[in-house]
Amino acid sequence: MDAVLQTLADNDSRYFRELAELVGIPSVSTDPAHKGDVRRAAEWVAARLRRAGDIEVEVWETPRHPAVFGRWNGAPGAPTVLVYGHFDVQPADPIEAWDSPPFVLTERNGRIYGRGVSDDKASMLLPILAAEAFFAAGQRPPVNLRFLFESEEEIGSPDLPALVRARRDALACDVALSADGGMWRADVPSITVSARGLASLAFTVRGPKKDLHSGRHGGGVANPLHAAAALVASLHDGGRVAVDGFYDDVEPIEPALRQALERLPFDEARYLAEVGAPGAFGEPGYGTLARQWYRPTIEVNGLYGGYQGPGGKTVLPSDAHVKITCRLVPHQRPDEVIANVRGHLERHCPPGVSLVFDEGSHGSAAYRVSSGSPAVRAAAETLRQVFGTPAVVVGMGGTVPVTLTFRETLGVDTVFFSFSVADEDIHAPNEFYRPERFRLGLQAWARLWRNLAAAWG
Amino acid sequence: MDAVLQTLADNDSRYFRELAELVGIPSVSTDPAHKGDVRRAAEWVAARLRRAGDIEVEVWETPRHPAVFGRWNGAPGAPTVLVYGHFDVQPADPIEAWDSPPFVLTERNGRIYGRGVSDDKASMLLPILAAEAFFAAGQRPPVNLRFLFESEEEIGSPDLPALVRARRDALACDVALSADGGMWRADVPSITVSARGLASLAFTVRGPKKDLHSGRHGGGVANPLHAAAALVASLHDGGRVAVDGFYDDVEPIEPALRQALERLPFDEARYLAEVGAPGAFGEPGYGTLARQWYRPTIEVNGLYGGYQGPGGKTVLPSDAHVKITCRLVPHQRPDEVIANVRGHLERHCPPGVSLVFDEGSHGSAAYRVSSGSPAVRAAAETLRQVFGTPAVVVGMGGTVPVTLTFRETLGVDTVFFSFSVADEDIHAPNEFYRPERFRLGLQAWARLWRNLAAAWG
Repeated sequence: MDAVLQTLADNDSRYFRELAELVGIPSVSTDPAHKGDVRRAAEWVAARLRRAGDIEVEVWETPRHPAVFGRWNGAPGAPTVLVYGHFDVQPADPIEAWDSPPFVLTERNGRIYGRGVSDDKASMLLPILAAEAFFAAGQRPPVNLRFLFESEEEIGSPDLPALVRARRDALACDVALSADGGMWRADVPSITVSARGLASLAFTVRGPKKDLHSGRHGGGVANPLHAAAALVASLHDGGRVAVDGFYDDVEPIEPALRQALERLPFDEARYLAEVGAPGAFGEPGYGTLARQWYRPTIEVNGLYGGYQGPGGKTVLPSDAHVKITCRLVPHQRPDEVIANVRGHLERHCPPGVSLVFDEGSHGSAAYRVSSGSPAVRAAAETLRQVFGTPAVVVGMGGTVPVTLTFRETLGVDTVFFSFSVADEDIHAPNEFYRPERFRLGLQAWARLWRNLAAAWG
Repeated sequence: MDAVLQTLADNDSRYFRELAELVGIPSVSTDPAHKGDVRRAAEWVAARLRRAGDIEVEVWETPRHPAVFGRWNGAPGAPTVLVYGHFDVQPADPIEAWDSPPFVLTERNGRIYGRGVSDDKASMLLPILAAEAFFAAGQRPPVNLRFLFESEEEIGSPDLPALVRARRDALACDVALSADGGMWRADVPSITVSARGLASLAFTVRGPKKDLHSGRHGGGVANPLHAAAALVASLHDGGRVAVDGFYDDVEPIEPALRQALERLPFDEARYLAEVGAPGAFGEPGYGTLARQWYRPTIEVNGLYGGYQGPGGKTVLPSDAHVKITCRLVPHQRPDEVIANVRGHLERHCPPGVSLVFDEGSHGSAAYRVSSGSPAVRAAAETLRQVFGTPAVVVGMGGTVPVTLTFRETLGVDTVFFSFSVADEDIHAPNEFYRPERFRLGLQAWARLWRNLAAAWG
C-alpha cells in the first residue's frame, strides 16, 4: 500500500473522533434556533479544511447560512475538480424515537448513529481527509482541488445558484464530484448517472362559499371532493400519465441504461417487503426500477377536504385541495409540464366547481450524465478497485438541483461519489452510517483523484 | 276571536320571557360539562308543562340525558296526539362569532337571537303554551295529549328508540306531531312530507406501510391517493350514482310530489347565490329540489391523505381516507345500500393498494307520509288559516330518525309542525327565530288540535 493509503488507514480512530465532533454540532438549517450552530459547523469545516494542508479557505456569506470554499492549485496541467457536499442537517424530531441522542455519534451493532451522519457529514468529510493524507504523506494531490460545502441543502439550497453564479471564476473546474447522493445498496457499489427533475403545482377546487349540510344540500350542488377526485383520477390511465403532451419530449430509455437495468441484482419481492407495499404498480411496459429512475411521474402528495375527525360529519365541504409533484426525465421542461397538467385539469374540471391554482415554483429539469464520460468511467474504475467488484450503473428517482446549477453555470458534469447508502434512515430517527464504508470511502477519494488525473492525462 | 286564541294573544310578553328563561339554560347535550344544565332544562320543561294545566308529567331517565313526558286524557272519543320536541342544543362555539351572548335571548332587528332558539326551544314551547291556553280559557284541549321532549337530539337520539319501546303503552297515539323540523322558507307556509334516510361508510386505502419519498419511490408502487381518487370518481357518472343496484328499489317521484314541486316558488339563482355555488349540479333529469328531497345521493364528506401543510412535501403517503354518507329515499334499505357501495369499491379497487372498511352504523331508512293523509291535510288547512295562504308540500333532504322510531314502534305517522325556518342559522353562530312566527305558531297549534279532532270525528 502506498504512503497516502497507508496514512488513511493509520489515522482511522482520529477520523471517527473528528466525525463525532462534526455530528455533535446540531447544524439544523431549517430551524432559526440553530442558526448559530450552522455557523459553528461552517467554522469547524473551514478550520478542518485549513488544517488539511496548503489549502486556501474562505467562508462565503449568503443571505441565510454560510458556505465554505477551499482552493488548491498545486497540480499544473492536471484537471481541476470541484468537490461538493453539505454540512447542514435535518431536524432530529421526533427525538423520542431515537435510541441514542441524535447529536452524539454512537456506535451500536457495527453502525454509527447520529443526525446527519449519513446525510451528509461522514461522506463530505472523506475528501477533506483524503486531501490531508496526500499532504501528510509528503505527496501532493494529483488534481487541482475546489471544495464547496454548503449549509442550505436541507432547505432546498435557495442561495446556492446565486452564489455559484457570483463565484463562477473561483469555482471554475473540469468536473464536479458530489459527496452527497448515496449509493443504491450497501452490498453493491454503484454509480448514479441520473436524477429526475421536479415540477410542482397545487390547486383548490372551490364549490359553495361555505360548508353545507350534506343532507339538506346534497344532490343539489357539486361536491368539491367529488370533483377533486375526478380530476386526480383523470391524471392517470392504468398507471400511465393521461395528460396530453406529457410524454412528448420523453425519449426511450437508452440501450446502455436498459442493459444496465437488466444486469442489476434487483429483488422486487424484497423491495416490496421493505416498503410494505401490497404490489408493484405504475406505467405499463417498464420494470419497477425503470419506472422509478428513468420514467416521468405525476404523484399527488396531498389531497384533502371535508371532515377528518373521528366518526362522521354530514358535510358537503366548501373546497378541496390537491398538491402535486411531477418527476421529470431529460428533455421535459418543468414549465411546459406544469402548463400541460394545468391545461388538462382545466379541461377536465367538472361542472359546478371552479379551480384556483397556487403560485407555483418553476421546478428543476432532470440531470443525466453519460455512463461513458471519462469522469464516470474513472469513478467506476475506482469503485471496482476499492470494493473488488464492478460498480453497477443506477439512476436516482429524486432530484438534485445542484447538478443543474453546476452544468448551467460552470458547464460541467457532476459525478455522484457518496458512500452513504439509501437505506440509512436519512431524515428519520436513528440515521446511521456504516464504518466500513467510511474506510472504503477514504481510500476511494484518494484513488479517484489519481484515476481522474490519469483519465485527463 | 275565541277565548283560547285571545288568551294566546294576550300573554305574548310573558311567553317571550319564558322562552328567554329556557334559552338561558345552556343545555348542550354533547358536552359533559353541561350535563347539569341539560337536567336543569328538563326540570324547567317539566315544571312548565305541569303549570300548563291538568297534565301528568314525568321525567324519564335514560343512560345519558332525561326526557320529559306529559299525558292528558280528557277528550274521550277524540284522537290522541303525541307532541315531540327537544330541549337540548348544539354547542355555541365559536362563541366569538356571536354578536350577542348565545345564552341570552336578545332581540335585534326584529329577530330574537340565542343558541337553540330555532332548534328547537321556541318551536317546542309552542304546544305547551297552546295547551295552557285551553285550560286558562276554561276550555279543554280538543284531543288527548302526549308530550315527549327529549334532550339527546343533537347527539343523534341514542337512547330514544329504547325509551319509546319501553314506554310504548304510555306513548300510544293516533298521530305524532313534531315541533322539530323547520319550514322550507320564511315567506311560504309549508308541510314537509318526507325526509331522506342515511347510510354511512368509511374506509382507508392502504399502500406502503410507511410514507415514502415520492422522488425515490414514485412510479414504483401505487399511491393510495390516486387509488382513493379513482374509487371516489367511480361512484358517479356525470352526477348520477354509478353503483350497481343503487337505484334498483327507487321508485319514480310520485305525481302528487312532482306536481307540488312544479308549483313551488323556487328561485334557483337565488338559492345558488345564497350557498355561493358556481352552479347547480347533480343527477341529470331532475330539478335541484327534486335532487335534494326525493332522489338518493352518495356524498363524500371527507377525503384526505398525504401532506396538508404550507408549501409542498414530496411524499407518497402510506394511506388515504374516505368518509361517505348516502341519503336514501323510500324502499332503499340502508344495509343493502352499504353492501352495494362496498361491493362497488372492492370491485373497482386499483392494483397495488388494499381497502380496509371501518365498522359502520346501520343507518336510517327514509321517511314519507302521504300528502293526502288526514293529519297532513289537517296541518295544511291549519297553516292556510293562520298564514292566510295555502301551504306548499315540500320534502326534507336531511334525516329524522325519530319518525322511523314512531312508525316502527308506535305505528303512527309523524307530521312536522315546526315554526322554525331553514335559514335561521341553526348549529351556527347567531342562531335566530322570528317573533311573528312564534305568535303564528301559538295560534296554529291550538287550531291544529281542533282540526285534527274534526278530521277524526
